[in-house]
Amino acid sequence: MNINYPEPEEARAAIVDIGRRMYERGYVAANDGNISVRLSDNHILITPTGVSKGDLTPEMLLIVDSEGNIIKGTGRISSESPMHLCLYSYNPHIAAVVHAHPVAATAFAVARIPLDKAVYPESLVLLGDVPLAPYATPGTLEVPQSIAPFAKTHRALLLANHGVLAWGRDLREAWFRLDALENYAKIYMCSRFILNSAAELSVDEQNSILITAGEGDRVKSE
Amino acid sequence: MNINYPEPEEARAAIVDIGRRMYERGYVAANDGNISVRLSDNHILITPTGVSKGDLTPEMLLIVDSEGNIIKGTGRISSESPMHLCLYSYNPHIAAVVHAHPVAATAFAVARIPLDKAVYPESLVLLGDVPLAPYATPGTLEVPQSIAPFAKTHRALLLANHGVLAWGRDLREAWFRLDALENYAKIYMCSRFILNSAAELSVDEQNSILITAGEGDRVKSE
Amino acid sequence: MNINYPEPEEARAAIVDIGRRMYERGYVAANDGNISVRLSDNHILITPTGVSKGDLTPEMLLIVDSEGNIIKGTGRISSESPMHLCLYSYNPHIAAVVHAHPVAATAFAVARIPLDKAVYPESLVLLGDVPLAPYATPGTLEVPQSIAPFAKTHRALLLANHGVLAWGRDLREAWFRLDALENYAKIYMCSRFILNSAAELSVDEQNSILITAGEGDRVKSE
Amino acid sequence: MNINYPEPEEARAAIVDIGRRMYERGYVAANDGNISVRLSDNHILITPTGVSKGDLTPEMLLIVDSEGNIIKGTGRISSESPMHLCLYSYNPHIAAVVHAHPVAATAFAVARIPLDKAVYPESLVLLGDVPLAPYATPGTLEVPQSIAPFAKTHRALLLANHGVLAWGRDLREAWFRLDALENYAKIYMCSRFILNSAAELSVDEQNSILITAGEGDRVKSE
Repeated sequence: MNINYPEPEEARAAIVDIGRRMYERGYVAANDGNISVRLSDNHILITPTGVSKGDLTPEMLLIVDSEGNIIKGTGRISSESPMHLCLYSYNPHIAAVVHAHPVAATAFAVARIPLDKAVYPESLVLLGDVPLAPYATPGTLEVPQSIAPFAKTHRALLLANHGVLAWGRDLREAWFRLDALENYAKIYMCSRFILNSAAELSVDEQNSILITAGEGDRVKSE
Repeated sequence: MNINYPEPEEARAAIVDIGRRMYERGYVAANDGNISVRLSDNHILITPTGVSKGDLTPEMLLIVDSEGNIIKGTGRISSESPMHLCLYSYNPHIAAVVHAHPVAATAFAVARIPLDKAVYPESLVLLGDVPLAPYATPGTLEVPQSIAPFAKTHRALLLANHGVLAWGRDLREAWFRLDALENYAKIYMCSRFILNSAAELSVDEQNSILITAGEGDRVKSE
Repeated sequence: MNINYPEPEEARAAIVDIGRRMYERGYVAANDGNISVRLSDNHILITPTGVSKGDLTPEMLLIVDSEGNIIKGTGRISSESPMHLCLYSYNPHIAAVVHAHPVAATAFAVARIPLDKAVYPESLVLLGDVPLAPYATPGTLEVPQSIAPFAKTHRALLLANHGVLAWGRDLREAWFRLDALENYAKIYMCSRFILNSAAELSVDEQNSILITAGEGDRVKSE
Repeated sequence: MNINYPEPEEARAAIVDIGRRMYERGYVAANDGNISVRLSDNHILITPTGVSKGDLTPEMLLIVDSEGNIIKGTGRISSESPMHLCLYSYNPHIAAVVHAHPVAATAFAVARIPLDKAVYPESLVLLGDVPLAPYATPGTLEVPQSIAPFAKTHRALLLANHGVLAWGRDLREAWFRLDALENYAKIYMCSRFILNSAAELSVDEQNSILITAGEGDRVKSE
């Protein structure tokens, strides 16, 4: 395992900071969205339910074990926490997860259109394909089952009729992927569906991008 | 009655805070929008007319009785206050009301398209159907009459050619519903009208969502 | 004349504040836009050219006379100041003017579509019809000539292929009209051009709105 | 050479300030975008890779020579820095460069539609035509080759399937051009592609604008 787990106080401050950015960017409304960080092999720091992500304070956050039992904290755990725990369980390299409902990416999720067209190198390098996980009833175990197949092979997901999920080796990386995903979704929506044109890069062009960016292991074949 | 009325100073601070958020999110322009909180069975704290909701101060707010007579405060009462008083009168569980003109939801109100398509579980759980109240001349008693039928059965409304209205058991809940409504309106507009596709959930899927979320009493039949 | 001219220091502070709001709302980009306030029958306080309206300081502002001669201040006067001076000259009740390029209203100005459809009572009361002034080369005397016919009969204008102009009896009123105009332009664009439907109010309905709002003198006939 | 190079500390503060504005305006997402300022004939101050442009601090910035060798600083240089160095090398009057991915202008870049329609005098004067540089693999030397032809004749560029680039005689000018470009792209997208109408100015009208604005040397012929 090549993860350097963060100090709990540092992780708490980072979640508060990213929560505020998610609110300010308009990626969450009301009390929706959730954020988690892995503190050790068996401990996860996660946002409680019912709170605006723009108004978090460090002491609100919950420490849970890998089955979702609360180890520390007094808030209520979110019904969406199994989605986070599933990702940590299926891929030991994941150390942070964010879930949100940014307008453009969620619109693709509601339209059930995956974000996998190679029109924008920035998203190709930072995100790769963003597939669409099949619809699952929020708050049930169908949700972790629907996302598990993507935990090791992808970096972010659209959840059909639900929202988006991004993860990374630390919270900064998970946040960068969420932020890049929404910018890409907006650009692609404007280009393909308003300007009525989006030039797709060939497989050769995509491979040049990935190799140049040091991501040669993700090279594609036709 | 299961309402814990807030302390007046707390309610004043909460209205100032939510007013600022409404302005920052762009849910109000100029001096429009209004916010109220029930202080007791017969007293309502409400924003005055003519002021930007981003610039409220606690002492600007008016206390009125259930007929709209000013009990305390020197500002002018809004011609839209009967809309608030109507909701409090028809449903004793309502303790806060917000009225605003966020772009996407108000566009649906101008297009006279209710927001009642089940494409996004978050809105189904938090809001339920958001119907369209028939057009009524703003500032007249037609407006409370047009909204009264929805006071006990719904959580938020589109007002035809006018704007939106949301309410709750406290101001936080009313604000969350307003914020969720506008996010849902944006997502649905992008998905259905720009991406040209919005997958609707079946009645069975909707019922699973409501039961899982502990809202089984709102279960639908075909 | 029923104008209470503001104190110069108060007017300077108000322009700095509104400039910051215009920048934060995205109604101006780069160094564009300008703001003025009438200080006396023959003195106007106006923003200089070349500065972001989000970065104004009180001492940057220029005092000019009604012919545009600089009376006080060291900055360069904007080539758009004749537009402001024209409005003050044609209508003695105008005491503040704002010019900006907010996206939605300016898009209507570029499309040369006036904002005069009665779909939204808020704009009907606050703004009335917002006509389209014919195209004139920016920075020339054609511009004041193109707007003069509207100075006494309207409250805001679209300038063909150029931007928007709003005025009032004080800066707060001019700002409210600009803010309301852009919100209305966004709502109408979404409703009519994205949702493909905008219910227009009848002349009778419009008259009821105007009379209820105490604007009976603006009542329309078919 | 008529450039007054800024003091290094002043240039560092200016980059931090513009980085924050780029983040707040939503012109960059994740760690993307980059900003540079020329400090002397052979020294460039430039943002490092991997950092959000909203979180820059003065000491993060790198000083590089005209071949891109790091002279001072400990961060990693961006693979996009050759794009900046190319512009400085081809045009000695350029003293600042910004690269970003604002939604509307980047959507035109992905649609491969240049922003060269004369519908908005503000952009004509501040920017002139904004052409489309042909697609080049990001991070390779194809990129500087693709932009070099525009370094002396234009002020900003769309990079096909990539983003936008703007430059100026100081950072304020480069930023103003980026900000104006995105506002123009949004206005043109709304007008031409949502309102379905964008009135184009004739060559005579364009020339009147340029001459009035003191840009007579850019006058066009049919």
